[in-house]
Amino acid sequence: MVKTVAEFSKEREQLNEIVMKHADLTIKRFYSLDSQAYREGALPSKTKEMLGLVASLVLRCDDCIKYHIIRCHEEAVTTDEIVEALGIGLVVGGSITIPHLRRALQAWDELGN
Amino acid sequence: MVKTVAEFSKEREQLNEIVMKHADLTIKRFYSLDSQAYREGALPSKTKEMLGLVASLVLRCDDCIKYHIIRCHEEAVTTDEIVEALGIGLVVGGSITIPHLRRALQAWDELGN
Amino acid sequence: MVKTVAEFSKEREQLNEIVMKHADLTIKRFYSLDSQAYREGALPSKTKEMLGLVASLVLRCDDCIKYHIIRCHEEAVTTDEIVEALGIGLVVGGSITIPHLRRALQAWDELGN
Amino acid sequence: MVKTVAEFSKEREQLNEIVMKHADLTIKRFYSLDSQAYREGALPSKTKEMLGLVASLVLRCDDCIKYHIIRCHEEAVTTDEIVEALGIGLVVGGSITIPHLRRALQAWDELGN
Amino acid sequence: MVKTVAEFSKEREQLNEIVMKHADLTIKRFYSLDSQAYREGALPSKTKEMLGLVASLVLRCDDCIKYHIIRCHEEAVTTDEIVEALGIGLVVGGSITIPHLRRALQAWDELGN
Amino acid sequence: MVKTVAEFSKEREQLNEIVMKHADLTIKRFYSLDSQAYREGALPSKTKEMLGLVASLVLRCDDCIKYHIIRCHEEAVTTDEIVEALGIGLVVGGSITIPHLRRALQAWDELGN
Repeated sequence: MVKTVAEFSKEREQLNEIVMKHADLTIKRFYSLDSQAYREGALPSKTKEMLGLVASLVLRCDDCIKYHIIRCHEEAVTTDEIVEALGIGLVVGGSITIPHLRRALQAWDELGN
Repeated sequence: MVKTVAEFSKEREQLNEIVMKHADLTIKRFYSLDSQAYREGALPSKTKEMLGLVASLVLRCDDCIKYHIIRCHEEAVTTDEIVEALGIGLVVGGSITIPHLRRALQAWDELGN
Repeated sequence: MVKTVAEFSKEREQLNEIVMKHADLTIKRFYSLDSQAYREGALPSKTKEMLGLVASLVLRCDDCIKYHIIRCHEEAVTTDEIVEALGIGLVVGGSITIPHLRRALQAWDELGN
Repeated sequence: MVKTVAEFSKEREQLNEIVMKHADLTIKRFYSLDSQAYREGALPSKTKEMLGLVASLVLRCDDCIKYHIIRCHEEAVTTDEIVEALGIGLVVGGSITIPHLRRALQAWDELGN
Repeated sequence: MVKTVAEFSKEREQLNEIVMKHADLTIKRFYSLDSQAYREGALPSKTKEMLGLVASLVLRCDDCIKYHIIRCHEEAVTTDEIVEALGIGLVVGGSITIPHLRRALQAWDELGN
Repeated sequence: MVKTVAEFSKEREQLNEIVMKHADLTIKRFYSLDSQAYREGALPSKTKEMLGLVASLVLRCDDCIKYHIIRCHEEAVTTDEIVEALGIGLVVGGSITIPHLRRALQAWDELGN
């Protein structure tokens, strides 16, 4: 079955430790750049997390989707907003995204929305 | 291990309920359009399901592949036909589709073919 | 060389006429759904166009990128905002998006930004 | 502007000569396998060409789409059939396929359909 | 949780048996071509396995990545080399590859590197 | 027709100037990281350029392919090596990569190989 948000976050952390054990400067700088891109700027963090979510949906990466769903929840995105953002991803990316849309909304639901 | 066809169908149904709980008009209309596209028309349903199967194989979506494998079985596609259709997907999409081809034929086998 | 925004829009219109000449109900309903998804709602049109832009960048579709660049310009997105949105697309989608990023900013520049 | 079918076929032939000038056994065997996959078998050539067309549409390769559009025309696929096949590709692959759908129907139109 | 290398290899073997039970000449020839492409030639096997690994990372196929990680280990690729190869995949393919990078390095670690 | 290597390099330079005119720190750091990843290290530059080439082929980005073809030429990769590397990309990525393989070998040929 689908992993819970807690299981997902724990596994993610454990695997990131393995990455950091082996990472060279290129990988470390990429991780740092990845954090920087989502920082509050001309666009609010909330918008940036929705951009990351829709990009992850159309590229169909479950782990990336779940991560941004959690971050959108932390940034107080509303259910109406998340559904509209996911709807754009669905229309752009097509029915092939539906299995990921299902798991995105399952995680959103699990977070109490 | 690989999910059985029954487990897959049950999970799919449960998650679709969560989608419908939150869905707006865009998502609902997309679901409706998705059903419409596969309806018997100038092309028979059987051909349309094979089109959906090959599209899902080259885009490498296991859930979509399994769904169309089940539908092809219901539409009485033969093993020779399914293997030729999957072969086109393999040649178009390359060796990166092989793990999905394996799971496609595992599901096909499980359905008694 | 790169097409101008005017050449792009004219060609797009001409080809859409050919689509509509042949389109069946499925294709027509998809076009209608595609318009609906970007309409002002819980999220403002401006945010939706940026979501469409980033989705198009990570999927690396030049025509889709140019279309959303034009729409973002119409919605008065600022250069700082467009650059931050494209930066998220670049980090998510990697260096493979750079040729599309170049053409995105070329079109943005051409629009007088 | 869009290349004509004749220009496309001529360029394709010229470039294939360059491929064959340099190709090793792996590339030659791949080309041969690519031809074999579309040969009449349990599925008719016509169905196989539509499978190749839809796979090419969802993977968004203009050259591959144009090639299969020409082959579908040679196999006497009707406009109603081609439109339904493309409609499945559009629904599976999403709005990101629309620029390719436009060019597919432009080529179909040019072939006198 | 993540499958062990042993579990992965066993499941892969079992599913390949199902493929071979149903495979036609196209699929069998593809499998044979897939083996041939990685054979020692102008490029050493070690380089070819790294090419397969990076191609698998940017296409985000966990099974393909794990297979090439195992083969790179057999070909005595060093940790410094694997990390630099994965770093190129990360930069080319973007943050969307990070979940696969994590699992790649987890498998590399599990192999005693 | 296909752009010459000289036309390609000139256009690339002009568009990069537009990127740098608008780029923020995220985009600038990405460009810098992109250069760093290909620097001589545990793996020689020559191998790294082939990794970039194959990644670009399977992701089907003509501009990226042409760039790495030029770089491979500068690093004195032989025709036998380039053909084997491209062959791996073709097998991994499938027939959908063939139009890009054609243009890759056309550029390789143009460079006097």
